[in-house]
Amino acid sequence: MTYCVALRMDRGLVFMSDTRTNAGVDNISVFRKMHSWAAEDRFITVLTAGNLATTQAVISLLDERSKAVGERVPSVLGQPSMFQVARLVGDTLREVIKANAGDGQAADSSFNATLILGGQVGDGEPRLFLIYPEGNFIEASDDTPFFQIGEMKYGRPIIVRAFDPAMSFADAIKLLLVSFDSTIKANLSVGLPIDYLVYEAGTHRAAHEGRIQADDPYFQKISSGWGEALRRAFDSLPPFEIPDRAPAEASTGAPAP
Amino acid sequence: MTYCVALRMDRGLVFMSDTRTNAGVDNISVFRKMHSWAAEDRFITVLTAGNLATTQAVISLLDERSKAVGERVPSVLGQPSMFQVARLVGDTLREVIKANAGDGQAADSSFNATLILGGQVGDGEPRLFLIYPEGNFIEASDDTPFFQIGEMKYGRPIIVRAFDPAMSFADAIKLLLVSFDSTIKANLSVGLPIDYLVYEAGTHRAAHEGRIQADDPYFQKISSGWGEALRRAFDSLPPFEIPDRAPAEASTGAPAP
Repeated sequence: MTYCVALRMDRGLVFMSDTRTNAGVDNISVFRKMHSWAAEDRFITVLTAGNLATTQAVISLLDERSKAVGERVPSVLGQPSMFQVARLVGDTLREVIKANAGDGQAADSSFNATLILGGQVGDGEPRLFLIYPEGNFIEASDDTPFFQIGEMKYGRPIIVRAFDPAMSFADAIKLLLVSFDSTIKANLSVGLPIDYLVYEAGTHRAAHEGRIQADDPYFQKISSGWGEALRRAFDSLPPFEIPDRAPAEASTGAPAP
Repeated sequence: MTYCVALRMDRGLVFMSDTRTNAGVDNISVFRKMHSWAAEDRFITVLTAGNLATTQAVISLLDERSKAVGERVPSVLGQPSMFQVARLVGDTLREVIKANAGDGQAADSSFNATLILGGQVGDGEPRLFLIYPEGNFIEASDDTPFFQIGEMKYGRPIIVRAFDPAMSFADAIKLLLVSFDSTIKANLSVGLPIDYLVYEAGTHRAAHEGRIQADDPYFQKISSGWGEALRRAFDSLPPFEIPDRAPAEASTGAPAP
């Protein structure tokens, strides 16, 4: 499993991904799930979840094509807009899945993968897409300004409640670390280290990029502090008053004989 | 889907369940998922998740047998211990699933169901079990003093962080309402009203039992207050400091040409 999140903010985009891959609980490895391409007129980041062979093939294909400078089309560096980049990445993903699944090979797990694509091309706005295994995709909007892929449920409530596209990049990373911590505590298949990347609108380069290791003192502070902060938040809610009345009879079944 | 939780506390047991069932998003209904049996020497509650036809059949079978006073064995009211009650309930569940699935019938969804069983028989301790579709079961312990069934992920982090078996019953219900609220906000297939039941050790009767409707003023206070409390908790964490250094190059792909 995997956990990746991307936020569409007023000032740009923020990406975070874990690095754990597993083929069974006794076969875990560390792989980067965040990949970026830069050129003078654009910056593009892809987060990957799903079958590792599929996602690595997709990234390698995109990578190879972007390096053949003479023939940049079809390359993520040659497309005229983020929408066209999304189409290219989606088509590449679908091709890879089809190539693996199509010729009668069977596998215990599926070859599927899901991607998040974000970035900016030229003067366009920074845009964020969620790309499905079928190759089609949806775009983040003001109503839904973030995407999660992989093991998304544990860490979703805090994002839903606390994310504000106007917050600072530092607060956004703090928020994502809280979300990742809740997920890591609950699911063994999501693990440190965590990669993050901040893209500031209009710059066409990564503003900040880093990796947070398991022994990172800030992450440990967040992880232990969040438990206490949650308990304080819980205590601040008004108490439930148990109604002072005889309970109804047992809802089903025979009364006492 | 469904969301049910049971807590094993120092003073007894607390149960909570939603009431929404769905066969597709356009076919939702309200069904009670909490069922209790009482006798002078025992109190037993079952929470159900999974195929509604299966869980209703299990409850009806247990119910019919408990009403035939002359032949209380095998009945939940005739078993000498909670462990034997769990075996009986597990066997009944397995039988019902086998009867539906065994004779070649196919269905879009599976006939499976999972149950939580809690209660107290005679002088024994209150005990809590999670019963699998196969009919076998596990028991809550000091290390894992609660069980969830159904759509458990969204509401799990707050229980993991804030539950303390020594807390009051009122606090336990407040905690579960927060957990249910997070789940209901994220998953359409979990819905109000919510049923709850408090069992106090040694009493052999429900101490409190009730249903919380969507317009319940306390639930609305919790639901709106929790968002704010979470944001305050988030603000109380130390800020992330974005390292003041040039970012590494884009992790993959060609540098700017």
